[in-house]
Amino acid sequence: MDNVKAIVFDVFGTVVDWRNSVARESAPFLARHGGTGIDPHAFADAWRKRYQPAMEECRTGKRPFTRLDILHRENLELVLKDHGLDPVRIGEAELAEWNRAWHRLDPWPEAVAGLTRLKRKFIIAPLSNGNIALMTAMAKRAGIPWDAILGAEVAQAYKPQPEAYLRTAEVLMIRPDELCLGAAHNGDLKAARNCGLKTAFVTRPTEHGPDQATDLGPSEAWDVVASDFQDLARKLGC
Amino acid sequence: MDNVKAIVFDVFGTVVDWRNSVARESAPFLARHGGTGIDPHAFADAWRKRYQPAMEECRTGKRPFTRLDILHRENLELVLKDHGLDPVRIGEAELAEWNRAWHRLDPWPEAVAGLTRLKRKFIIAPLSNGNIALMTAMAKRAGIPWDAILGAEVAQAYKPQPEAYLRTAEVLMIRPDELCLGAAHNGDLKAARNCGLKTAFVTRPTEHGPDQATDLGPSEAWDVVASDFQDLARKLGC
Repeated sequence: MDNVKAIVFDVFGTVVDWRNSVARESAPFLARHGGTGIDPHAFADAWRKRYQPAMEECRTGKRPFTRLDILHRENLELVLKDHGLDPVRIGEAELAEWNRAWHRLDPWPEAVAGLTRLKRKFIIAPLSNGNIALMTAMAKRAGIPWDAILGAEVAQAYKPQPEAYLRTAEVLMIRPDELCLGAAHNGDLKAARNCGLKTAFVTRPTEHGPDQATDLGPSEAWDVVASDFQDLARKLGC
Repeated sequence: MDNVKAIVFDVFGTVVDWRNSVARESAPFLARHGGTGIDPHAFADAWRKRYQPAMEECRTGKRPFTRLDILHRENLELVLKDHGLDPVRIGEAELAEWNRAWHRLDPWPEAVAGLTRLKRKFIIAPLSNGNIALMTAMAKRAGIPWDAILGAEVAQAYKPQPEAYLRTAEVLMIRPDELCLGAAHNGDLKAARNCGLKTAFVTRPTEHGPDQATDLGPSEAWDVVASDFQDLARKLGC
């Protein structure tokens, strides 16, 4: 890790707790629009489940690169219909505000403190599939001290496409091996390593709730393995 | 200005004092490489003079969009030759470091304090022709508290091309009239206003040295006119 100049981070699940936050944000909307019987956590999971298939249409070229705020909004309407709620009756203003639930995700408890330490030694930025407006609003609300907002929209490619990692190194004007990805997801790290990036695994064993079965530990010998962001900062000498 | 959600700023001249900073950074390089007779401020001016023509080649499509760090480096070699110095003899490592003079520009004395106030109420970001790596390094060194790094590289267009302004609003997912440009240059503000942006003029009467003859005051009735960034923060209720 001696050559590393910048660490870029997966955000959903790694830096922020999307599941509890989207559930919390969705609860009052569900209550207002006839969805009192729907479990907000199940709703959050259902919304998130449409995330990968929506991006896949962009990855395969079926549709041009489309920012995640728009995919989230399309998916919201689909999930509402799946739960027997009519988006048209809910109305534009409510749907737009509901969709911004993804702008109001809370960081894991130690994430901001850990990132603040890491920022002393490294350039830190998101390498998220979230778009610039989403990441900027989230960071501003949560106090995440990014040096820059990078990610899929800057690269015009969704992870795990190689371009997402390689173009991020390119805009930072550093070599891939001078860039490290920090993520709670082995698949993301594998794709980054294949592009020549350094890799840091941060364990998030409850991202998907109490019964999480995936990504409970590292699947490979990543360059760093940390229990959380404070541990990552310590292991990187910050 | 009531609808404004984000203020983006010109950087060279508006936020940072490029002339004195590039002169200071260039002085030891000139001394080391046989340029003791060259006035560092005149050298900074000569380097900056090649800025617009280099970007113009990208604007007109003569060459593809090329990030400013690369244009600065090409221009450095040209300016050195103009002053009778041989870039080849100076060598790659020294040239690369000299070029990073543009990463080490100091803010005007009140700029960081003013931006810190503005950040409470607005999203703040650079809308500079400087590239992402340059703006990120500069902000990190100088403590400029940007919410995101936007600008020419994100828009893939150099100001005053309309795309530079319009795509910046687009990535922030706001209307052009919800975006304000802050700049010390009337031409930049005119181009922004033509795209529907709000405009804030900040006076920088010594950007070009003690004999500056341009941009000493507003050329039009901009939405806000401020004497500096503290004054701008005050006038916008921050």
